[in-house]
This record gives sequence, structure tokens and C-alpha cells, in this order.
Amino acid sequence: MADLWQNAMDHAVALARTAGAVVREALQDERKVMMKSSSVDLVTQTDQKVEQLIIQSVKDKFPTHRFIGEESVAAGEACVLTDSPTWIIDPIDGTTNFVHGYPFVAISIGFAVNKQLEFGVVYSCVEDKMFTARRGKGAFCNGRPLQVSDQKEISQSIVATEFGSIRDPETVDKVLSSMRKILCIPVHGIRGAGTAAVNMCHVACGCVDAYYEIGIHVWDVAAAAVIVSEAGGVLMDVTGGQLDLMSRRVLAASSRSIGERISREIEAFAPVRDDAPPPQ
Amino acid sequence: MADLWQNAMDHAVALARTAGAVVREALQDERKVMMKSSSVDLVTQTDQKVEQLIIQSVKDKFPTHRFIGEESVAAGEACVLTDSPTWIIDPIDGTTNFVHGYPFVAISIGFAVNKQLEFGVVYSCVEDKMFTARRGKGAFCNGRPLQVSDQKEISQSIVATEFGSIRDPETVDKVLSSMRKILCIPVHGIRGAGTAAVNMCHVACGCVDAYYEIGIHVWDVAAAAVIVSEAGGVLMDVTGGQLDLMSRRVLAASSRSIGERISREIEAFAPVRDDAPPPQ
Repeated sequence: MADLWQNAMDHAVALARTAGAVVREALQDERKVMMKSSSVDLVTQTDQKVEQLIIQSVKDKFPTHRFIGEESVAAGEACVLTDSPTWIIDPIDGTTNFVHGYPFVAISIGFAVNKQLEFGVVYSCVEDKMFTARRGKGAFCNGRPLQVSDQKEISQSIVATEFGSIRDPETVDKVLSSMRKILCIPVHGIRGAGTAAVNMCHVACGCVDAYYEIGIHVWDVAAAAVIVSEAGGVLMDVTGGQLDLMSRRVLAASSRSIGERISREIEAFAPVRDDAPPPQ
Repeated sequence: MADLWQNAMDHAVALARTAGAVVREALQDERKVMMKSSSVDLVTQTDQKVEQLIIQSVKDKFPTHRFIGEESVAAGEACVLTDSPTWIIDPIDGTTNFVHGYPFVAISIGFAVNKQLEFGVVYSCVEDKMFTARRGKGAFCNGRPLQVSDQKEISQSIVATEFGSIRDPETVDKVLSSMRKILCIPVHGIRGAGTAAVNMCHVACGCVDAYYEIGIHVWDVAAAAVIVSEAGGVLMDVTGGQLDLMSRRVLAASSRSIGERISREIEAFAPVRDDAPPPQ
């Protein structure tokens, strides 16, 4: 079985690279068009094209495997993690960046068996950085091993998070209130790449000491969760409890103490879960 | 005279590249050390080393020129723009990024004569992107021409800004209040690269539609101001009035209308000016 998952991971890396080339091409060809009128349609087209490319190729090679993909779920497929080997796919993480050409856009491919994540591949395709990790085998960027920072002082830390896409005043207030409290711990700074997958890879690289966000989806974080863990980082819920991949909340940190310190400042809220039954 | 300034600009590009190599080397060699105890000292060392490298080389080639440099001003030199040809230098824009290895770190070299900016060079040295612009001659990144976005809809815009390094509650409240109002216009998103120079180059590239910040210094923005203008963008004060390079405030936008719309949401405040006489 170990060899099979290595084959699957090798296939995921190859697919991420192919998908990244498609995304880069779309960025070059279509940005001018997208900026104008039908940006949402064109993003969706590229998203769907890349997700189908990945899913079809995996089906050909591993016909019994299952999928959780952003676009498939948007099209009405169930978002449930079973014990079956499951590919968890975000064809474009950072769609707002994609629309604007901001340089962080990632293809995210995670893989779970018996509900346990076995490997993760995040390809930051504009930077041409391929982040990979297999459970128990370490994390890498373009083949170089990754290690989270050894920062112990929260006041010397840099924290990644996002404003998110929810704009109702109550949510915005909670998001900004958390940022304010973290800023005033104080920390060195707050950054946000505009993609969950890249923010988590930044934790794995050690260039940020923690990342948290409420509102993300399982396909944004599944792959990068393996990369953070294998780089020596910790994953938890924003309250400091155990990470629940379907909860739309994540906190990744270089150490448990940094993570728990940040969790104490976050105003937690609970978006509708990814595995919630569809509204009747 | 035109030829002389072109010579100066060619020299600035060469110096930025040399300085970038020094910064990249420092990032590789010293990050592990810096993360631990004496990060501030080591940043200052590299900052000073790079600024001295640039200033000494310019003095050798253009002995009558003057300088405004972050480290020289920190060491007590005056920060006054005269009519003399003046090099305005930030040896490392994005020092927090530098300390943490976050991938946006820039060398910024602006040049003014008769108080008018003649050229700007911003080298984002981790990305290896050389941004250049000479007044009236266009803006370029690694030789490719730059153009601001043609976004007309504020609600489709992406805005760059920073939390800044001031942590007193009154300032933090103003900074967050502005962000909240801009978010809720609404805009597509808020991003921050962690360096003013790179944020402004992002406006020039069109990957963000505007950037504003209060608290920056003349050496953070002088070079990038030429790049934004020559890419077709506009520069103004955060109130929508005329840009004052010494005022510690900047707003760069793809168009006057986008800039003015954003200026209406910003809670302006006035830090001590760069050209204020030193306290007695």
C-alpha cells in the first residue's frame, strides 16, 4: 500500500505542475478580459477546467478513488470524507489573486485514506514553488526540506491571516477585532498572501510563525495541513482545540505555545460546516 | 543633462542589483541567527552595509550629489530635499519581512533634481524583479513595460495597505477603522506585501488597484512614485490632495477616481514629518 500512495503522490505532483501551467496561461491570456466584465465567469471556467483535468486523470489511473473538489461540491456533489482513498482538490486557491494577477495562486491536492491525510501537494504556480509532503516523510519546497521557525517569543512573531470574503458587518467586526488583539499582543506584523494554502506553506517555510482563518474550506487546507505537520508545525482549531477539517476553521503554528497564545485572542465563530447536509 | 541622468539611472540599476545580492546572501546566511536573539542588530548591520555600499559608489561616480538615506537619517543627518541632485535610498524596504524571510524585500533608489523625481529603481531581490522608471520614459519590470489596471469599479478593486509598526491603541484604531470602511465599500480584498515600495510596484503592475499608508518615509516611496506615475497611475495624499513626499503619507492608485474614492474612507492622521527639525 505504501508504494501505491507514493505512486498517487507522484501523480499528484505531475498533475499540479500541469494544472499550474494551465493557470499561468490563463493568467497571461485572459487577465485583460477578466478585469473588465465577466471576471467571475472566466475564473469559474478555469477553475472547472483545472478540476476536471485533475479528476479525470486520477479516475483513469485510480478508478476506485473518491473526490472532494471545490467545483464538484459547488455543482452539488457531497462533501463527505469517507474511509475510501479520497483526493481533496482546490483547482485555484486564491481566486481573487488570480483575477487580479496578484502573485500567489496555488493548486492544492490533498489525499486521505481512512480519514487520515497521507500526502499534500501545493503548487504556487506563479512563483513556481512546488510544496510537497507525505506523512512521516518530511516536507519539501522544490525538493529542499522545510522547517517551521523556532520562534518562541510571540512578540517577535509574524502572523498570517486574511480579511476573508464575508462582508456582513457582524463578521467583519469579529475578524477585525481578532486582528486588533493579535497586533496589540504585540506581534511583529500581520501578513496575508490571499490564499490559505500559501499562507500555510509560509508557516512550513518559517517565514510566518502562525496562520489562522475562519471561513476556509477543507479543499483550501487539506494538502497544506500535511506540509505544515511534516515541517514540524502544529495544527489546531482557532479555539486551541483539535483541528476539524470540515469546520471551516484552521490555526497552523510553528509550535503549540505560539498557536495557543494566538488562539486566546481570536473571536471564534462557526460558519456552516463543509459537511453540513444541503438546505432542504 | 539628459545623458547624465541616464548614466545615473544605469548606475542605480547596477547598484540595486549588487545590493540585492548582498541582501539575499544575508537572508541565507544569517536568518537562523537573526531569528534567535539579536535580530535588530543584524538587520541594522545589513541595512547600514548596503546603504554605505550604495552611497560610497555614487560618491565616487557623482561627487557633487547629495543623499537622503534611511540609515544616514537614523544616524542624525538632515532629511531635506534641496535643488541639488539627490539620491533617496532605502537599503532594505521591508525589514520585518527580511528578518522573517517573507519573500518581499526591496532595495529602493530614487533620484530627484530641483525637487522633482527623475527616476526610480526598486529591486525586489527575493523575487528577482527589477522595477525601473525614468520620468517621461515609462515604467518597466525586468525590461517589460508596466501598466496600471484599467479597473473602474471600486467594488471590483483590490487595495494594498499595511497595519504598520505603530502599536499605540489610538493609531491602531484609526488604521483598523480605515481598513474596515474600505473593506465594506466593499472591495474585492485587501493585501499587503509588507513593503511600501513593492506595494507601489504592485499598483504599477496592475495586480492591485490602489495602495495607501500613513507612517511611511520619503525613502520608502520616492523611487516607486516614479514607477507608479510612469505606469499610468496617480499619486496623492491620503486626503485626496497633492502628494507631499515628506509628509509620511501616500496614496497611489490606478486612476484618480479610484484614489479619491479610497481617500474618502481613510482616517487621516499626521505623523512627525520627515523634514521636521530634530527635537531640541
